[in-house]
Amino acid sequence: MIIDCHGHYTTAPRELELFRDRQLAGLADPSRKLAAPAPEISDDQIRESLEKAQLRFQRERGTDLTIFSPRASAMAHHVGTAATSRHWSRVCNDLIHRVCTLYPDNFVGVCQLPQSPGVAPADCVEELERCVTELGFIGCNLNPDPSGGWWKEPPLTDRWWYPLYEKMVELDVPAMIHVSSSCNPCFHATGAHYINADTTAFMQLLLSRDLFKDFPTLRFIIPHGGGAVPYHWGRYRGLALDMKREPPFEKLLDNVFFDTCVYHLPGIELLTKVVPVDNILFASEMVGAVRGIDPDTGHHFDDTKRYIDQIDALSETERHRIYEGNARRVFPRLDARLKERGM
Amino acid sequence: MIIDCHGHYTTAPRELELFRDRQLAGLADPSRKLAAPAPEISDDQIRESLEKAQLRFQRERGTDLTIFSPRASAMAHHVGTAATSRHWSRVCNDLIHRVCTLYPDNFVGVCQLPQSPGVAPADCVEELERCVTELGFIGCNLNPDPSGGWWKEPPLTDRWWYPLYEKMVELDVPAMIHVSSSCNPCFHATGAHYINADTTAFMQLLLSRDLFKDFPTLRFIIPHGGGAVPYHWGRYRGLALDMKREPPFEKLLDNVFFDTCVYHLPGIELLTKVVPVDNILFASEMVGAVRGIDPDTGHHFDDTKRYIDQIDALSETERHRIYEGNARRVFPRLDARLKERGM
Repeated sequence: MIIDCHGHYTTAPRELELFRDRQLAGLADPSRKLAAPAPEISDDQIRESLEKAQLRFQRERGTDLTIFSPRASAMAHHVGTAATSRHWSRVCNDLIHRVCTLYPDNFVGVCQLPQSPGVAPADCVEELERCVTELGFIGCNLNPDPSGGWWKEPPLTDRWWYPLYEKMVELDVPAMIHVSSSCNPCFHATGAHYINADTTAFMQLLLSRDLFKDFPTLRFIIPHGGGAVPYHWGRYRGLALDMKREPPFEKLLDNVFFDTCVYHLPGIELLTKVVPVDNILFASEMVGAVRGIDPDTGHHFDDTKRYIDQIDALSETERHRIYEGNARRVFPRLDARLKERGM
Repeated sequence: MIIDCHGHYTTAPRELELFRDRQLAGLADPSRKLAAPAPEISDDQIRESLEKAQLRFQRERGTDLTIFSPRASAMAHHVGTAATSRHWSRVCNDLIHRVCTLYPDNFVGVCQLPQSPGVAPADCVEELERCVTELGFIGCNLNPDPSGGWWKEPPLTDRWWYPLYEKMVELDVPAMIHVSSSCNPCFHATGAHYINADTTAFMQLLLSRDLFKDFPTLRFIIPHGGGAVPYHWGRYRGLALDMKREPPFEKLLDNVFFDTCVYHLPGIELLTKVVPVDNILFASEMVGAVRGIDPDTGHHFDDTKRYIDQIDALSETERHRIYEGNARRVFPRLDARLKERGM
């Protein structure tokens, strides 16, 4: 089967956005009350939002299951208070749960965390636990910069984050490191902030001597093909050697994985050439940052399966690991679920 | 000939650093006075600092001329005031001028600009003009984030920067977009901040509809192989199409160039595959961010000439453009200088 490890509910019914507007309006004018604690969205609306988008692309491209989370750019952890973020995260995660319940063969959930700038990540433990144990989610998205482009939180290797990591390890769920929108005018969200965050997070992990000693089973996925990292693989190997990193660079790959959201063939060629196959998880992030068709190929830029299928250097076993095996290893709760279904 | 368009004086005699210490000590304790307005460094000290490093590598690797500028990480525009930055830039640029005077066949100067957070770039015009017209420099390094990792300046496409661009156009000199050290603990300097800045700057330029209409001959070099950009070439082409960029994406390449500071063969393969040859300028940034030897090849990571020489897909004419032709086109003052010498 083909598992896409990176999809967001970017096509959610408009009611979700209207709910968010009312929620934020209440910050500006506390006399406003929310009519209901969650948007009213029917099952049919959910079906319609997916049938013409994610489900259609799954069918057309021949992928099976998408690891699905709330829209990343809408997490907007920098807006409002910790209470705002808690409520909004709960609403978004509940909606993902409804998607996964309606289409259990097509979607499995990953949660948004109720992060808030300057608020200890310990505050996210409760929602993570709820999503995993009650809603059947298999991972979370972790924002290394809840300030939205101002980078005021400690690096991901700081003990500040440890309470969240303890819960992730206990639940045996990985995190995809994924920022949200940028409110810094220097950074375009999907063209700079996303990619920079991937690169930044990898370098933070490379600098740490303790994190993966303290949490040997902690696992991170760096999305968007790892930002700039595979393209600069020599730089990172060289920096690790110059700083006499111990454990060595390669050891980092026990805990750090890359997705395949790279939207052209030469990029995927590079990724699969330099990053060990066991560290690559198939992903497209459809429907996401780039929605158009490449005039040079006649296919969607984000149809990443086409690129991987064209890499002759990959054996069938290797391709299988990228498409399925690695995702089942990095997301053990998914593997267990699939095994229950005899898959 | 082979022109390396990206080298910094990272091996400057220790007197330069001691001078900087005294300068900054004077900020903390204004009663301290500098003994002299510049460090006392002899010609022999300069020769010694280069013979064992940059000149040795030029000889060993078979490169001829390095476009040379002050150490990027030491620019530290975020430290002190605009006056601090002016004095420090002048000292550093004067030292580069001495290098270029001692070794006119091996080095040609590019200047550090006396930027300071929140201070209008118009303030840099005088030093740029001095360096170009009096010292014979051929370009400048422009820091898109003089705050050192907090990204508080307007994007490079903002009119805020226009007075500097006017002078660059008048003098017909390009800028390499290059940040300095990071004082944001999230960003490792050479492993994150440098690469992020390259990616960020490219995306800023991609978003602009006016900059290169207003300055049709303005030219920027994005160093470190363009950050993440070539690896995500499909993403950028797709974003440009999605936003119906006008002029089209390809038009941006009239004004934007990439260097070859990518420290492994697959990265250089990708760069030369996706970026038009006319937009690639040879560079190594030696002696710079990565100083070690790759145990897999037995050669220095930053010996980028080796990688380019291995790209069979490049014709000899194309290789010549990367090694020499493009640099002479992007730096017309260098071209004029070389022609004077009959080269």
